Amino acid sequence: MTYGLGLFLEDGIVLTTDTRTNAGVDHIATITKLSLMQTPGERVMFLASAGNLATTQAVVTLLNQRLKNEESDTNLNKAQTMFDGASMVGSVLRDVMNDNATFVQGYGDPSASFLFGGQIKGGKHRLFMIYPAGNFIEASPDTPFLQIGETKYGKPILDRAMAHDVDLTEAVKLTLISFDATVRSNLSVAAPFDMIIYRANSIGPVEVRRVGEDNAYYHQIKDAYNAEIRDFVRSLPATDWEECA
Amino acid sequence: MTYGLGLFLEDGIVLTTDTRTNAGVDHIATITKLSLMQTPGERVMFLASAGNLATTQAVVTLLNQRLKNEESDTNLNKAQTMFDGASMVGSVLRDVMNDNATFVQGYGDPSASFLFGGQIKGGKHRLFMIYPAGNFIEASPDTPFLQIGETKYGKPILDRAMAHDVDLTEAVKLTLISFDATVRSNLSVAAPFDMIIYRANSIGPVEVRRVGEDNAYYHQIKDAYNAEIRDFVRSLPATDWEECA
Repeated sequence: MTYGLGLFLEDGIVLTTDTRTNAGVDHIATITKLSLMQTPGERVMFLASAGNLATTQAVVTLLNQRLKNEESDTNLNKAQTMFDGASMVGSVLRDVMNDNATFVQGYGDPSASFLFGGQIKGGKHRLFMIYPAGNFIEASPDTPFLQIGETKYGKPILDRAMAHDVDLTEAVKLTLISFDATVRSNLSVAAPFDMIIYRANSIGPVEVRRVGEDNAYYHQIKDAYNAEIRDFVRSLPATDWEECA
Repeated sequence: MTYGLGLFLEDGIVLTTDTRTNAGVDHIATITKLSLMQTPGERVMFLASAGNLATTQAVVTLLNQRLKNEESDTNLNKAQTMFDGASMVGSVLRDVMNDNATFVQGYGDPSASFLFGGQIKGGKHRLFMIYPAGNFIEASPDTPFLQIGETKYGKPILDRAMAHDVDLTEAVKLTLISFDATVRSNLSVAAPFDMIIYRANSIGPVEVRRVGEDNAYYHQIKDAYNAEIRDFVRSLPATDWEECA
């Protein structure tokens, strides 16, 4: 399983995935699920993937191979807008599914989904979620985060504390709390996490930051959250219902 | 969908379900998913159900009908221990599935699961989760809560703040926060909630408390939690990573 989370902010985009991959309980490995395609100053695009690893690797590899292919109509370097880029990701996903799905279905789910974000010079920074069917939706100030994979455990804190206008440091904090909630509840999601922190209008260069179990800030934030959430709950008013008296 | 939550405490048991039932988006109703079988002073048993409504209603109705049937080997009044009672619930579930599952499967999932708790005089208060297969597990001080139905959204706060030694007022508070998290994330779970608050060794009488959208304490706790969690998160240390600077 994977957890992938994209936060869409006034200040930029924070895109994070875990790195745990498993095909059955006895084949567990660490792998990156974040890809970065960038021509700093001109365009920065990043892609987080969840689902069948053969499908996601095929999609990412084909997209990367085509970056220099002037003939290809799914060359992300030729995308005029981020919307066009999202269409290309969906189109390649459909091609891979067409080629493989019928063969794979007998063994497991061949499907995959993606978070695709970035910025092209002259446009705004944008973030999309591409569904297994290849169609997609876009994040907005009213829908400031998108998730793929094992999304449920990490959602409540975002529903409550995430907003389009939080700054990048707050977004990193919320991301780590959301991932920690998922890791605590689901063994198939695990650190290290891969994280892209993109500041709007910088148009790169961007790097992937790997946040391991022993990362000092991850430790600090998860320890503080866990230690203090119980006190915080305790500080809320108690009921006076007679059954509790 | 349903969310059912049982908290197993030194001080007793808090068992809660929502009341939303739906068969498709155009058939939504409010129904109780909590049943209470009690002979105050002698035994108190309560059952929360999730899953196919025809299955759960059949199981609950059969269990209730058999409470006065001296011949029945699934008469909960004849259970010597709560463990025996949990076996009876599982056994009736298996019978109902045997009778119906093959006919129902073409239309949808016939399966169901239950939380079963209570106390029989001379024994301790105990809480079980009965799986769709009719087998079951028991809550313990190390595993102080059990969930059925739409369990994921409400789990992180429990993983962090719930413990066997919290008192009943704290357990009610955690229950309402866990349910509010679920309601916010999943439209098919909704207030009112039905709640049984059982104090250990009281052996009844117990009542079901209905907590509606307009319940004063539910309002107070969810408003306070939502208003303050964001401040709480903001009060945690910020990262000094250069990408955020």
